[in-house]
Amino acid sequence: MIFSYNQLFSFTEAVFQSIGCPEADATLATETLLSADLRGIDSHGVARLVGYVRLWEAGRINAAPRVGVTYETPSTAIVDGDGGLGLVVGPKAMQVAIEKARQVGTGWVSVRNSNHFGIAGYHAMKALAHDMIGMAMTNASPLVAPTYSLDRLLGTNPIAVAVPAANQPDFVLDMATTTAANGKLEIAQRKNIPIPEGWAQDAAGTGSTDPNAVKNGGALLPLGGATGSHKGYGLGAVVDIFSAVLSGANYGPWVPPFVAFLQPPADPVGQGIGHFFGAMRVDAFRPADEFKAHMDNWISTFRNARATEGQHVLIPGDPERETAAHRLLDGIPLLDAVIKDLETVGAKFGVKLS
Amino acid sequence: MIFSYNQLFSFTEAVFQSIGCPEADATLATETLLSADLRGIDSHGVARLVGYVRLWEAGRINAAPRVGVTYETPSTAIVDGDGGLGLVVGPKAMQVAIEKARQVGTGWVSVRNSNHFGIAGYHAMKALAHDMIGMAMTNASPLVAPTYSLDRLLGTNPIAVAVPAANQPDFVLDMATTTAANGKLEIAQRKNIPIPEGWAQDAAGTGSTDPNAVKNGGALLPLGGATGSHKGYGLGAVVDIFSAVLSGANYGPWVPPFVAFLQPPADPVGQGIGHFFGAMRVDAFRPADEFKAHMDNWISTFRNARATEGQHVLIPGDPERETAAHRLLDGIPLLDAVIKDLETVGAKFGVKLS
Repeated sequence: MIFSYNQLFSFTEAVFQSIGCPEADATLATETLLSADLRGIDSHGVARLVGYVRLWEAGRINAAPRVGVTYETPSTAIVDGDGGLGLVVGPKAMQVAIEKARQVGTGWVSVRNSNHFGIAGYHAMKALAHDMIGMAMTNASPLVAPTYSLDRLLGTNPIAVAVPAANQPDFVLDMATTTAANGKLEIAQRKNIPIPEGWAQDAAGTGSTDPNAVKNGGALLPLGGATGSHKGYGLGAVVDIFSAVLSGANYGPWVPPFVAFLQPPADPVGQGIGHFFGAMRVDAFRPADEFKAHMDNWISTFRNARATEGQHVLIPGDPERETAAHRLLDGIPLLDAVIKDLETVGAKFGVKLS
Repeated sequence: MIFSYNQLFSFTEAVFQSIGCPEADATLATETLLSADLRGIDSHGVARLVGYVRLWEAGRINAAPRVGVTYETPSTAIVDGDGGLGLVVGPKAMQVAIEKARQVGTGWVSVRNSNHFGIAGYHAMKALAHDMIGMAMTNASPLVAPTYSLDRLLGTNPIAVAVPAANQPDFVLDMATTTAANGKLEIAQRKNIPIPEGWAQDAAGTGSTDPNAVKNGGALLPLGGATGSHKGYGLGAVVDIFSAVLSGANYGPWVPPFVAFLQPPADPVGQGIGHFFGAMRVDAFRPADEFKAHMDNWISTFRNARATEGQHVLIPGDPERETAAHRLLDGIPLLDAVIKDLETVGAKFGVKLS
């Protein structure tokens, strides 16, 4: 079934207000969450609304947080999310990075005491309107085994980098540091089909094509698969360190799970989960027009490269941008299971999905 | 044959002086170059000395560059390498980043008009002694095909991140954004053995296990292999943009080749090759002692994870640090072909390898 962006927006905003989000925060959280549905990253969008509500019911989300800077230098800040929705904490912290960049060329903000923030790309893209390069990363619940490990110590820890161009669409990289996101395993589980090699290992640490491998005590594998997973592990580790060891959030196996039915570790090493945001003013390096003209040249050179039969070379962000344009016009398809979840959560608060 | 670090140092320093490097630059270039041999990254060390000399003979390296800041804000700078050895330009630019970080918390330097800078990890590690996180990246000669591309548009574009710890050894990630470095293909060529899937494609864009695939018109593949190469492509692209589009160096297919027998493109889009350096003062986020104590906890948690039979979980930088400790004591092994090259280049300048 297809829903318009506006339908989902009204519904989601009303649900966030129902759990106690102030109006402006509810709007912000909705915009952040639905950016995933627009961009085709369905696993991180409105399908997760019920998950956020359950975390709030479990007392693990503060719907009316006082998000603030607790420490700063001219180019850096620590933001304490006060246990709020990452969907609200994230944009506020990114705004701090942008302000710092306006002042001294770049701004870098590490965030503690937050929660899941939706898609990293959304936050990084906030910099684009200011002719800045944006960066966003976050740690996440441990599902990933470092190279040779049987233990799950890292999340899918995404990295996003958004770079402005002139006439070409902007460059927007948004990638998990694993070979595949957990959402792709869930799809394979539903279809009961094997997963490609390099996505997961079983409980004994052996590469597995069983879509239930992670569920049954296995783990997702870092980007790089059989011959290069130490690189994905290293990148995921950097995301964890920048997001949480710098900020004072939980890291590694201490990151609290997103699902409310799993308890957070009893011996936390920090507060909540952590994010890291960066903004770099392009004209802190060279005139913005000059930079953006070269970005246009970069983009068109790569886009027009000779390609394998029936394919063409994509620029990071192309598929998501095209999906967003399409879904804004034609609506956002939701799975029946997701609709049912939304109707249940709506009924709880007297909010209708219509 | 085994050579002591001091033997190779004296020899290399004398060769750099012979091509006209001022004494201090020759020492700096030697320290930078040999850090690769010490750390076991033999492809990037003294084996390349003859390559640098040939570039100088071809008039493509300025042995006595005036390296300087051409533009800056409180947290950023552009450094012009004046066509110098990256081995000299790199450390000087990293020093600028460190000074900026001292002043305003972080420093970010994009470099144009440079040349190959050795291993990225060496530059990132310069930040550690200052209780800073160091970052270094560089673009490089195009050998890598983006996902679906038949054309080679990117280099192996490495990323290095160094993070200080307290009692544990520092965390040092230094990785190419490809599945395998070209050096590994060269080893397979010499041994005439097939390469693993996911390393390279042939001229038609089909995955290949032929060690000569790249030589014969194919390309290296971005990190991620068959199911995730768009991620490695995206990371390599970010390195290219930060290093060269920000600085005004050549990017993508315009990056000049390292080998002197190939001419640089006739229509450059910038000057030389580009690097990008970052330094973040740890105490611009939280007290350094607190941060480093948590890094110790992070490192020991990961190191002590349950591992697959006969293995243990490594921390990025472990193998290189162990090799360096060992080689400082016991010497650095060189292949006969490398020794012969060094003797030839030494004879040219009356410098003996002894």
